[in-house]
Amino acid sequence: MPERPAIAPRVSRLRALLRRSGLEAFLILDLKNIRYLTGFTGSDGALVVGAGKPALLVDGRYTTQARKQAPGTRVVLYRDKVSGIAEALSAGGVEHVGFEPAVATVELLSSLRRKSKKVRWKPLQRELGAIRAVKDPGEITQIRRAIRIAAGALRSTLGRIRPGVCERDIAVELEYAMRSMGAETPAFDTIIASGPNSALPHARPGSRKIRPGDFVVIDYGAVWRGYHSDETCTFAVGGAGRRHERIYAVVKEAHDRALEAVRPGVACRDVDAAARGVIEKAGYGPLFSHGTGHGVGLDVHEAPRLSTLSDAVLEKGMVITIEPGIYLPGFGGVRIEDTVLVEKGGARVLTEFSKELQVIG
Amino acid sequence: MPERPAIAPRVSRLRALLRRSGLEAFLILDLKNIRYLTGFTGSDGALVVGAGKPALLVDGRYTTQARKQAPGTRVVLYRDKVSGIAEALSAGGVEHVGFEPAVATVELLSSLRRKSKKVRWKPLQRELGAIRAVKDPGEITQIRRAIRIAAGALRSTLGRIRPGVCERDIAVELEYAMRSMGAETPAFDTIIASGPNSALPHARPGSRKIRPGDFVVIDYGAVWRGYHSDETCTFAVGGAGRRHERIYAVVKEAHDRALEAVRPGVACRDVDAAARGVIEKAGYGPLFSHGTGHGVGLDVHEAPRLSTLSDAVLEKGMVITIEPGIYLPGFGGVRIEDTVLVEKGGARVLTEFSKELQVIG
Repeated sequence: MPERPAIAPRVSRLRALLRRSGLEAFLILDLKNIRYLTGFTGSDGALVVGAGKPALLVDGRYTTQARKQAPGTRVVLYRDKVSGIAEALSAGGVEHVGFEPAVATVELLSSLRRKSKKVRWKPLQRELGAIRAVKDPGEITQIRRAIRIAAGALRSTLGRIRPGVCERDIAVELEYAMRSMGAETPAFDTIIASGPNSALPHARPGSRKIRPGDFVVIDYGAVWRGYHSDETCTFAVGGAGRRHERIYAVVKEAHDRALEAVRPGVACRDVDAAARGVIEKAGYGPLFSHGTGHGVGLDVHEAPRLSTLSDAVLEKGMVITIEPGIYLPGFGGVRIEDTVLVEKGGARVLTEFSKELQVIG
Repeated sequence: MPERPAIAPRVSRLRALLRRSGLEAFLILDLKNIRYLTGFTGSDGALVVGAGKPALLVDGRYTTQARKQAPGTRVVLYRDKVSGIAEALSAGGVEHVGFEPAVATVELLSSLRRKSKKVRWKPLQRELGAIRAVKDPGEITQIRRAIRIAAGALRSTLGRIRPGVCERDIAVELEYAMRSMGAETPAFDTIIASGPNSALPHARPGSRKIRPGDFVVIDYGAVWRGYHSDETCTFAVGGAGRRHERIYAVVKEAHDRALEAVRPGVACRDVDAAARGVIEKAGYGPLFSHGTGHGVGLDVHEAPRLSTLSDAVLEKGMVITIEPGIYLPGFGGVRIEDTVLVEKGGARVLTEFSKELQVIG
């Protein structure tokens, strides 16, 4: 059995949000949010958090598991999810209910409106994300473990990355190594992008064979007890040409400046600006086509976002990625990514691989 | 490059649905539906099908890929999905638009309503599922290939299933074998459920070690070019006791009777009844706690459903599973699943493993 996470403070933060929003209850449908607030890991269900004990609604497959994993809740069996939710709300006599608009489907909310005519629904999405953004020590332990598994797997796979081997085979071996070392799953579809493919930030590993002189971008992660790791290494195979070295140096500096900018109270867009400024100054601004980072936890992408548009502010306990990149169409790209913990004194790097340019193969 | 699927007849069927529904356009958000109707395999986008050439809306990551994969569409780049959809609808001058209520989130539809004030939205979910339920020859080829990969992987892993080996390690090896043989991914989280765990229809493979006398339920599948396979084998390790043999025989007969019932024009609930009748007659009715089967294609679970509540009717070209089971809490369970093609003369079994009781280990 996994250790029991520190659920009570999380539910308290949600209740504080309820009060601030003038709501009597919150309907949670996102399974990661349900897991966060209860410990329940099933693949379907709903959670109603109001004044009393939270009600965890599940179908017949999950009653035993829910009682075991979520002792802080009242487990309620439903045959039909919408009816189950409507009954839970009616039993609580609540009329002002918050919900997750980016998770609830039109079909579900329409059915709920028909069944619970007295309820007024209020969309609240970002507020929930903000609660999850600050990690407690147990969560940081799980993320570290996921990172350790992923790094161990990459170390054991590194010898395979050499001329003649195709991207897809490296991805299959790396994912197998992560699973063998205990990962629940890969954190996302592993990216192995070599040569010109490395110019595509979201390349899928294909049949291209590694060649001497390639840059290989490896963006990968593992899941441990629901928590994700996320790291990107860009290796040079055989050796790196001048242009490659130049791009790598710019991205590395952008990465380092962003790391230095990380501190509680700093605006996420200022961390993004720290990385982006370096890349723009070097003349590659338009080729850094994504944000500098994002929160990592039960989802591989979660709050806060580190981009030009972000209005989030870093807090102690957030776990975020720093991952600037430059992508030259037809030539290749470099991305350098660490996952870091926001501490009082700044960023603590959790990921394990050195981000100096490494020649392999 | 994958072969180009036969897109045009699919779009024609959707247009016929538009006419029947009195709509001018359809907004498709489900990525599997988009893939089905265009060939585009990206991880984000939207499709508007109206009178003219369908408009495939994608973000900057996907314009090149969309043009390559979906030549039958007009590829439109958006910076913001909602604005992109609103502009496409406004450019087409359409006011009556169908959408997928079980896919569209409340947030997305609210934003669309704000941006496209003239549009009236009509939910249409099942009708789209019905279009995908009947497979064309190209789709059947892909499903067969997925089945062949999965079966090859299970054959190569079978020797590992012996006393002392834990469920999770078997799952890791089986999934690795599928990936090595070309699967894009496993079709779903592989189920390896041994001994008493086999009494849980949705067990997750864990640390339990196989013991002599166990039944081991293996429910697994592979994905090939987006298409899924789905098969369940229940093996006896070392040998099977009387009670095991008895349950197996009942489930096998239920499976065979359901297979015999499959024919174009037959109600899906009658196929379910054929299996369920055998199990009820043997006294295990309440222990067969799920439907008899479901369609398989771009989703591992799609239309039609084969259950007591289904109002679908089998048609030539549907690909469905037949998977009755009996689950005795604390003792163990048996599930036997084939994927079959509905042909004029009846069911053609596509899955490759014999469903006679096999002793392994």
